[in-house]
Amino acid sequence: MTISMVIFPNLTQLDLTGPYEVFGRLSHTKVFLIAESLEPVKSDNGLLLIPDATFETAPPADVLFVPGGRGIFDAMQSKTLISFLQTQAKNAKYITSVCTGSLVLAAAGLLDGYKATTHWLSLDLLKLLNVDVVEERVVIDRNRITGGGVTAGIDFGLYVASKLFSDDIAKEVQLMMEYNPAPPFNAGSPKLADEKIVERVVHSRKAIQQQRAELIKKLLRKQN
Amino acid sequence: MTISMVIFPNLTQLDLTGPYEVFGRLSHTKVFLIAESLEPVKSDNGLLLIPDATFETAPPADVLFVPGGRGIFDAMQSKTLISFLQTQAKNAKYITSVCTGSLVLAAAGLLDGYKATTHWLSLDLLKLLNVDVVEERVVIDRNRITGGGVTAGIDFGLYVASKLFSDDIAKEVQLMMEYNPAPPFNAGSPKLADEKIVERVVHSRKAIQQQRAELIKKLLRKQN
Repeated sequence: MTISMVIFPNLTQLDLTGPYEVFGRLSHTKVFLIAESLEPVKSDNGLLLIPDATFETAPPADVLFVPGGRGIFDAMQSKTLISFLQTQAKNAKYITSVCTGSLVLAAAGLLDGYKATTHWLSLDLLKLLNVDVVEERVVIDRNRITGGGVTAGIDFGLYVASKLFSDDIAKEVQLMMEYNPAPPFNAGSPKLADEKIVERVVHSRKAIQQQRAELIKKLLRKQN
Repeated sequence: MTISMVIFPNLTQLDLTGPYEVFGRLSHTKVFLIAESLEPVKSDNGLLLIPDATFETAPPADVLFVPGGRGIFDAMQSKTLISFLQTQAKNAKYITSVCTGSLVLAAAGLLDGYKATTHWLSLDLLKLLNVDVVEERVVIDRNRITGGGVTAGIDFGLYVASKLFSDDIAKEVQLMMEYNPAPPFNAGSPKLADEKIVERVVHSRKAIQQQRAELIKKLLRKQN
């Protein structure tokens, strides 16, 4: 089983490292980080990731995966990245993303008419892209599997493991990862957090979300 | 605020990348990956991490952090790593770990007489090391903060963020990370998982746990 995880500058590293931890524990499975070149890729909080292969040298993927993060702004406009996804998607068993990675899949036309999800801040943006947006933590529609924001990648990874192998294999990985979460606060979704916390986060991301909306509208105009 | 995260070959990457994602989102905070040399460090499932500084060039840490993983077997015996922890611990505000990182802290004598926790498979090993072992997901005793296995690092990171800054700051990070976990299975602790799943995991790790127990007994004999 070959799992190809696409990386690009300013990705959110936990979107990727959460499911990587699940996939890395599966037998008969090889995980590749795939990028434009073999140079280290810096995440939006500074962590450096080293690619295993480039868009040109990557093997055919059974599972194609795209993380999210600030870098999706450039990733959605990268002809080489979008074309890599479109080519690999033809033969992939599963086409997947976590967080705003689904905006990149959608920009490549790979979620047209599919149910999918994304980070709660970007649900409205995904709706612009011909996607049937579902507000759930992990959404499975035929061979498309998408996760919500950042930490949803761990739940997502376990769903993918159960699809690829079995529930028992996924449960063994969950137990080894001691995934019995106990968040210290009840603030993990805009429905649960205090209004002032939600407002502060929405405010701090307003400019980025607006830029993304404008980019999506530009991409849609180009297509038509 | 300087957060120094020690890395070593065969660490479990999510022990580190979970809390890194929390710390990387805090203002006025610089996160460093510190290793023996500046060469990339390979995690136990293949992810390569690039150090920011060495044990010799690292700045003084406000928060000292140790992850776990298979590599703790060598880390517990590394004179340079143990001596780095002991030196930095003298002035650190918080001395912390996730997963079996607490065995490394304990081998450095930094948990003597403290309450602490570790991955569920290694609770008995931590008890050998003069530690008051508590079976909780995150344990805070004075300035020692320790997390349980792998994914406990996210809960741990949020506790540390609230200690360093405030509950509101930690909640904002939790909301941005959409940390509203929904595991697909109820198998994240040996108390919850089916007996056959627990047995399989315990069996698969038996040799490693035995090696660790022998190493700890050897280290204790040396100290006396």
